[in-house]
Amino acid sequence: MPRAGRRPGQPGTRELILSTARAMFAEGGFDKTSVRSIAAAAGVDPALVHHYFGTKERLFLAVLQVPIDPAEIVSHVAAGGAREVPARLLRTFLAAWDDPVSGPAVVALLKGSFQHEWAARLLREFLITQVLRRVSAELGLEDAPLRFSLVASQVIGLATLRYVVRLEPLASAPSEVVVRAIAPTLDRYLLGPVA
Amino acid sequence: MPRAGRRPGQPGTRELILSTARAMFAEGGFDKTSVRSIAAAAGVDPALVHHYFGTKERLFLAVLQVPIDPAEIVSHVAAGGAREVPARLLRTFLAAWDDPVSGPAVVALLKGSFQHEWAARLLREFLITQVLRRVSAELGLEDAPLRFSLVASQVIGLATLRYVVRLEPLASAPSEVVVRAIAPTLDRYLLGPVA
Repeated sequence: MPRAGRRPGQPGTRELILSTARAMFAEGGFDKTSVRSIAAAAGVDPALVHHYFGTKERLFLAVLQVPIDPAEIVSHVAAGGAREVPARLLRTFLAAWDDPVSGPAVVALLKGSFQHEWAARLLREFLITQVLRRVSAELGLEDAPLRFSLVASQVIGLATLRYVVRLEPLASAPSEVVVRAIAPTLDRYLLGPVA
Repeated sequence: MPRAGRRPGQPGTRELILSTARAMFAEGGFDKTSVRSIAAAAGVDPALVHHYFGTKERLFLAVLQVPIDPAEIVSHVAAGGAREVPARLLRTFLAAWDDPVSGPAVVALLKGSFQHEWAARLLREFLITQVLRRVSAELGLEDAPLRFSLVASQVIGLATLRYVVRLEPLASAPSEVVVRAIAPTLDRYLLGPVA
């Protein structure tokens, strides 16, 4: 007889894996936490983790309740080269925020970061391992971490002001007004003098 | 005998005024809410509100638990003219965030906005009536609301990234590195083409 915790398909097993993964990613970070170690801590077979969630990256996205695929987004935003990134990035984000599923998910990530240090750490891990690494690989920027954190500061601030604080006229401005106003900022953060 | 609620100095009177004011400012906004109406709703004499809090503006700042004087800050930041605002503003905010009293207060305002729509409304009212109006009066900018909301988006994003999400290298960068990287953004938002 296997241990009760190792039975596949048991109600609550998926949630047990998720909550164990959340605690371990927050404590040890994404790179140092293996599917094997999460499975061991949850008392399940690693194959069951793969069965429910696929790869470690998918499990991490499930923990963060991020309903988008960062690899796909980064590849789409970077497709036209660095000069086109600012407008593409803003249009992609504005569309994601207007979406009834991904918009609230972004707000929830930020809200969680204000409430719990572990949630802030998960968001940080997400930005570094799922977004910055891909951006660096696609665009090959010098000073990528500084440039990326400047871009993130403006994009996160835009999200907060437009969707949470809702300060006018930025809260109701059409997407293209936002793109015209903010794209030059992101252009300088990505390619201009910042250091 | 006056009504119990009208007795000055009764324990809890100050807190009763504060919670009544919080609800009324959030519901009706700063301009449409008078000290007289707050006093009436709290069942106290208006003189008692003035005794505890001074002006309506001071009461509003007490509601928001903002331990700074926006009039003083705006006047200091604007003192050198519009061209000097970006660096002065960033240095002032970075110093305020590093301060053990005002730093947590700013974070608490943002955190509250993510948690409660009424808190977001109070922050909005604060930005418009206590900051934007003074900035407009001091600098006389065209398109002041759009320019102000763009500046606010970058400054709020910087606060979130540096102090809450703590993404490196922006989280630990010396103040002057932040000023060099971000001041040109604020300069364009205040004086450049944005619309």
